[in-house]
Parts: sequence; structure tokens; C-alpha cells
Amino acid sequence: MLMEAALMLPSFGVSLLYADGMAFAFLLTFAIVAALSLPLVLLLKPAESHMYIRDGMAVAGLGWVLISFFGSLPLVFGKVCGLADAFFEIASGFTTTGATVLTNVDNLSPSIAFLRSATHWIGGMGVLVLTTAVLPGMNGQSSSLAKAESSGPSYSKLLPKVGDNSKLLYIIYSVLTIMLFLLLKLCGMNWFDSFLHAMSTAGTGGFSNRGLSIGYYNNLAVDIVTSIFMLLFGISFTVYFRLMAREFRHAFKNEELIVYFGICAVAVCVIAFDIRRLYSNDLGESFRYSFFQVSSIVSTTGFSTADFDLWPNMSKAILFILMIIGSCAGSTAGGLKLIRAILLTKLASREIVKAFSPRKVKVIKLDGKSVPEDMLNHISVFFYVYMLITAVGVLTLAISGCDLTEAISGSIACISNIGPAFGRLGASGSFAFLPSATKVIMALIMLAGRLEFYPLLILACPSAWRKT
Amino acid sequence: MLMEAALMLPSFGVSLLYADGMAFAFLLTFAIVAALSLPLVLLLKPAESHMYIRDGMAVAGLGWVLISFFGSLPLVFGKVCGLADAFFEIASGFTTTGATVLTNVDNLSPSIAFLRSATHWIGGMGVLVLTTAVLPGMNGQSSSLAKAESSGPSYSKLLPKVGDNSKLLYIIYSVLTIMLFLLLKLCGMNWFDSFLHAMSTAGTGGFSNRGLSIGYYNNLAVDIVTSIFMLLFGISFTVYFRLMAREFRHAFKNEELIVYFGICAVAVCVIAFDIRRLYSNDLGESFRYSFFQVSSIVSTTGFSTADFDLWPNMSKAILFILMIIGSCAGSTAGGLKLIRAILLTKLASREIVKAFSPRKVKVIKLDGKSVPEDMLNHISVFFYVYMLITAVGVLTLAISGCDLTEAISGSIACISNIGPAFGRLGASGSFAFLPSATKVIMALIMLAGRLEFYPLLILACPSAWRKT
Repeated sequence: MLMEAALMLPSFGVSLLYADGMAFAFLLTFAIVAALSLPLVLLLKPAESHMYIRDGMAVAGLGWVLISFFGSLPLVFGKVCGLADAFFEIASGFTTTGATVLTNVDNLSPSIAFLRSATHWIGGMGVLVLTTAVLPGMNGQSSSLAKAESSGPSYSKLLPKVGDNSKLLYIIYSVLTIMLFLLLKLCGMNWFDSFLHAMSTAGTGGFSNRGLSIGYYNNLAVDIVTSIFMLLFGISFTVYFRLMAREFRHAFKNEELIVYFGICAVAVCVIAFDIRRLYSNDLGESFRYSFFQVSSIVSTTGFSTADFDLWPNMSKAILFILMIIGSCAGSTAGGLKLIRAILLTKLASREIVKAFSPRKVKVIKLDGKSVPEDMLNHISVFFYVYMLITAVGVLTLAISGCDLTEAISGSIACISNIGPAFGRLGASGSFAFLPSATKVIMALIMLAGRLEFYPLLILACPSAWRKT
Repeated sequence: MLMEAALMLPSFGVSLLYADGMAFAFLLTFAIVAALSLPLVLLLKPAESHMYIRDGMAVAGLGWVLISFFGSLPLVFGKVCGLADAFFEIASGFTTTGATVLTNVDNLSPSIAFLRSATHWIGGMGVLVLTTAVLPGMNGQSSSLAKAESSGPSYSKLLPKVGDNSKLLYIIYSVLTIMLFLLLKLCGMNWFDSFLHAMSTAGTGGFSNRGLSIGYYNNLAVDIVTSIFMLLFGISFTVYFRLMAREFRHAFKNEELIVYFGICAVAVCVIAFDIRRLYSNDLGESFRYSFFQVSSIVSTTGFSTADFDLWPNMSKAILFILMIIGSCAGSTAGGLKLIRAILLTKLASREIVKAFSPRKVKVIKLDGKSVPEDMLNHISVFFYVYMLITAVGVLTLAISGCDLTEAISGSIACISNIGPAFGRLGASGSFAFLPSATKVIMALIMLAGRLEFYPLLILACPSAWRKT
């Protein structure tokens, strides 16, 4: 929450700079959050400083709900929208979903647009990771906090100390973001838009201060730069670490990375071919739009340069399946994560072999190393939980009047932290028309998806609250 | 294949009885199938009579593809449709899917209509189960054959000898079918239609000789009787065995059964409430249609009395989710099976507890008995394979011009052996407009779903063909 209070200050600055009348809203939120959190930090000293996995999970689960709630206050104080809408919008920001309930994004106050993109940036790499990077007392801590928030089945510890690890991640993240920021400026975007879109891309979020998203600029260079960077932010950050450490072979001997680029290449080609008629058979143009949209969906960013809801059915079906899979573990992207899909497919083919020769049990390997059975079991249950929560979202959206395509794709767009879905929830639409209760449930589904379920689910589990 | 040849004879009889001009088609098919299979039976004597699991699987996988192919010949010879369409239709029959490519069902020759329903009846309980029940040499055999074909994670052996077990299953099955046949006649259906619909209901198939399905009769008694029997055929046959053995407590102390009725009751009530406006707020009427459609979908039969594609979104979403789950294991119904959904949910909640107290590993119980971890792992991988093959179906249908709702629901309707989906593939539509290649792929997906994947998937696995 201290981090959240701090986050209000740059937005406050932007508000003063552009004199958009939102300064008071940010100042008030800063005061409230600081007044609530500072005494807690100063007065409550934990009896035990060591954090167990369950502590990390509880902090992540509760923490993310709280920051989404308090982060929504500026929108309420600034009269941008009501509390349920604001909670949806900021949860969508922190979880890097990018689904919006605001229908007139072009006329948004600059400071609010800034806040939306800033939540993407912080939520992408992680609020708790940032905390462990910044707060000096955290360096000696266990990695439970950062672990609870990180994406993918395993937490890669690049450096022995959790604080150093977090700092390193944020340095790589910042360098990539600044590179993108400068490139976008070079391509012709203005400074403010470049900064906002750089933050939104880095977090693989998708919020834009333009109703037409990246399509607004209609600029080939911007499209290509953004497409490439969306893909880059969908890659595990350990790959960048290995590159920095000049371990090139180690960096590229990575099954997930190879499958990632393979899937993207196939999807881009098939979709480019499928949509060519919409671009008067100009394959160059259709490649441009196909590449952008595949990057955007597979990295779970959710930017758009075209209304892909109008594309042919095959292209839509491919995008739909990419929505479920998502990107690489250890990136800022959401979804099931490719590594899980790879391991599940290996598990499935082992099951087939086991079916006819039950005594032969092969060890499953990834990147040449054997994967523990425990982790495999965990992943297959994870897949079921993903689908189960998706089903809750489908029912919620259907009750709220969405048709089957909207309900299924909308639920997946929330749980995989993508943003736009199909139909009225598509790139040219918004979640605005849904009832408030639906918005709150979908916001919780985004949070569940971002935290990979368990940190949020244990909060609903009475025995997790008991003292041990 | 001998069974298949035998199946041609009653259809031949019906053809003669109604003089519908199809007699030659059935006779020719009988001759071909008998000429191909009899020499094999007489000349090839297996060196080893014991059947291992992999033998059972291979026989089931190959056998079902072959009977679907040869079973389609009468439709080709009778000039009802082309080979791809006929293969789809008969695979849809044997797998008890009930999806059709015939657009004018009302004018179908009686013998062809009979064949369609007969494939449902035999496919429902199983062709191999029938073989082990009828062929005298099979009684001493291991249960690998019947196991490969039976539905659900475990094969329930009620009697020690596999032949006796199969006979018992077919006796219960026949008694229930005859009861339904007589009840339908009593309700006002004619003898022929009663017999056909009794067979289609028993196999939870869904083929009808009426384009409007059960809705054609517009008869409350028929609706109620059919609704109840569809539900009954979705129950594990071991329950009926226990009832026959007067083990009443044992029969009803069955978590799957309780959840089955619970889900049905909730779904019927919610949908009845949701669709009441379509029936001028007459709750009695809306309960009638809701009960019928829920029974039909949950039992994966696929009959309809109303075009549920026109129902409100919430009702459609509930039916959609029921399509995935399906009915009880050990019944004639398809789908994921409730027992798997129950065990997966228990696994998921154990995962949540494990997340915060990793050392506590609880044993998962069903009906008071602990479930082996091996089976649990198997089930969670099964769920992934189900979704993976569904995704193949989604892409296939989307390439063939289906929109997302049609592609997703159509793929699930095939893999779960339901039949009607939504949109053009709904109760008032058919699969007729799809290209031939799509029909063949969807037929294979039905077969994969009916055999629960592995018997069909191992055929694609080179090492399964090697001698050991």
C-alpha cells in the first residue's frame, strides 16, 4: 500500500503539468492510502520475520485486491466513473488485462491515462517484486513474496538474494521500456503517448489513451516496433539475464522459447493468408496486421490495429486458442503459459504410451532436465482450475446478457489478462454495458488469473486463516 | 465385423417389411462384411489367446473405425448420401452422438432410420461388450476388450467372468429399453417410432426419424417419459445391478449419482425460470421444455422438443457447460463424465490446501474409499487431452466456415457425443453444409470421444505397432 501511495505522486505530477483538474483526486487518494498504511508499518512489528509460502500467498492475494480497490479511488474522486467500474478498470490495469469500461478513452484526463498505463507497468513485473526491490529490509527475506506473484510453474532465482533478484528484474524491465519509449518517439508518436504506450506494452497490458488503440497512429513503424516489443515482453526475463551474462547457448537452448516463436510464425502466416482479402490481396498489409494482432494476443497485451472481430472465422479461432495459451512463464504476460502447455502435451503423450505398456514410465524432460512428477501433477490440476474459473466467468457473462462467443472469449480475455475479446467485448467495444456486480466478478477473475489462482483462492479457505 | 454383418439382417428385414427399396443395399453390405470377416475368423488363429490391455485398445480403436466404415455402406449403396457423409452418419450412430448430415430426415427410408437407431443401441453399451456377451469363446478371456470400450475411469466388474458381466449388462439394458418402448407406445407413438426412439434413447444417441425430433409428437406424456429415461440411461449400470441385488444402501451411497441429480435439478430450475417468457410465463410449460432439454444434454442424447438455440444466453451457457461434463461413468452417455469432474474438483481443492501447507497431503476419497494417486493423475491428463482434441475440432470447424460459437459448441457436441450444438449446428440445423474432409475429421473426433481417446490415439503411435 505504501507503493500504491507512492504511485499517486507521479500521476499527481502529470495532473498538475496538464492542469486536467485531477490533482485533488490523486492527492486525496495519496492521503487516504498513506494514512491507512503508514501507521500499520510503524506500529505493527511482525513477531516472526521469516515468510512462509502461505504468508507470501496471503500477502499477494489480499494485497492485490487492496491495491486494486485503493487504486480505483482517483477515478471515483475525479468523477470518471463509479466505484465498481473503477475497481474493474484498475484491477484490469494492475493485472495487465487492459479490458476497459471507459467508452470515451480519447477524452480521458492525461493523469488518469497515465495512471492506467502506470498500473500496467507495475503490475506486469509485480508489485511485491517491486517492494522487495525497493524496501531495504526485504533483501534478507525468503522469496515467498516474489514467488507468490511470479508467473509460471517455477520461480527462477537468478541471484541468491531476493532483493537483488528483484532489482535485476526491474533493471532489465526498465531498460527495455526506455528503449521502446525512445523508439516510439522516433517513429513519430508524441512524448506523452510514447511513454504511456511503452509502459502498457512492457506490462503486456493494453491500455491506450486512444480509442482506436495503436491503430490510431496508422503508422507502419509504430506497428512493427510495438509488435516486436510485445513479443519480447512475452519472453521469460531469465532469457535476458542469460544474454546479459553472455550465456548465449544457455539462453536459446530453451524449448519454451522455440515453441513460442514457432507458434507465432505459424499463426502470423496462416492469419495473414486468411485475411488477405480484407486488405485487397496485399500480402504485405495483411502480414502487418496479422503480425501485430498475433503478437498482441499471444503476449496477452491486447492492443489492436484492426478490429479483428471482423476477421474470418479461422483467424478468430486461432486467436481464441492463442488467448488460452498465452506466453512464456517468467514474463509479464498472462494466460496458461506455454511451458504448461508443453509439459501437458508431453504428459499426454506419455499417457498414450503408458496405455499400451503400463510398466514403462518415462521421465519427462524439459531443456534436457527431468521435470519432477510433483510439478507435473500440479500443472495438470492447474489446467482444470483455469477451466473451472473460466466456466464461472462464462456463466457470469451469460447471465449479464452476453452471447456464447462473448461469454467464452470474454471470460478467457479476463482470466488470461488479455483485454479485448470478441463481439461487444471486442477491440472496438468495451465491458461498459455489463452490470456492476458482473464487473466486480470479472475483476476478481482477472486477479485470480494474474496471481495464478492459489493466492486468491486460499483467501476463501477457512483453514488458511487459522493460526498454526 | 461379424456383429456388424449380423446387424444388417434386421435392417434388411425392415426394408422388406416396408418395401422401401433398400433391401439390396443391406444384403450387399452383409455379403461384403461377411465375406471379409468370416475367412479371417476361420483362418487366423491367434498364437496367444490372452488379451493384454494394449490388445484390447488396438481392437477397440481399429474395430470402431472399421464398423463405422462398413456400416456406412448401406447408405452409399442405397444412394442416401456419399461415403464421407455416410461415414459421419454411422460414426455418429455408433458413438451415440446423433449429429446428422441428412437434411430431410422425415422422408428417410424406414430401414435406414432403423439402422441409425440400431447403431445407437449397440454403440451405447458397446460393440465389444456385445461380442464378449455373445461369442462363447470369450467368456474365459480377460476383460481388456470390454475395458477398452467402457466409459469412465474404472471398469466395474460386477461378475467375475467377463462374458457373464457383459451378458448381465445387456440384460439390464434390454429390459430398460423394452420398458421405454412399451411406455412410448402407450403414450401414443406408433410401434415403429416407439421402437426407434427407445433404441436411440437407450444408447443416449439422439437420432430420430422425425426432423423435429421428439418435438414432432408435441405430446406431454412422451416428453416426460423420454426425459426420465434419458436421465436413467445417464446413470452407471452398476447402480441398476445393485438395485437388482437389493443392495439399496450401496446403490444410493454414490457421490456421482447425488451430484448428477443435484446438477440436473439446479439446471432445470434455473433454465425453466430463464425461458419462462418464451412460454408466456407459464412455468409448467417452461419446466417441461427445460427438463427435457437438460436431460437430453446432460445424458448427451441430443433429442430436442424446442430449438434451444433461440433460448436466452444464460440457458445456452448452462447447456454448454453441461455438454462438457456429460453424465455418469459406466452409463451409455458421453462427455467428460461427472466422476472425473468431481475428482478433479477434489484434486483442485487439495491443491489449494497444499499451497499453504505443503506438508499435509490428504488422500482423496470417493464414496468413502480412497482413490489411488495414479488414477487421479490419469484423470487430470485426460481432461487436458479432452480439451486438446476439442481445440482440433474448433480449428477444423472454423476453417470450414463456422463462427466461434458453432465451432466451439460443435466440437464439444462431437467429442462429448451429444449431437446438436448451437447456431447452424443446432437442433434445427445439421452438419450437412460442412466439407467432406471436415465431416471425416469430426467423425474421428466422435470416435475418439466415445473410446475416451487412448484406443484411437495409440493407433497413431508407431511403438504400439511393434512386436514385443
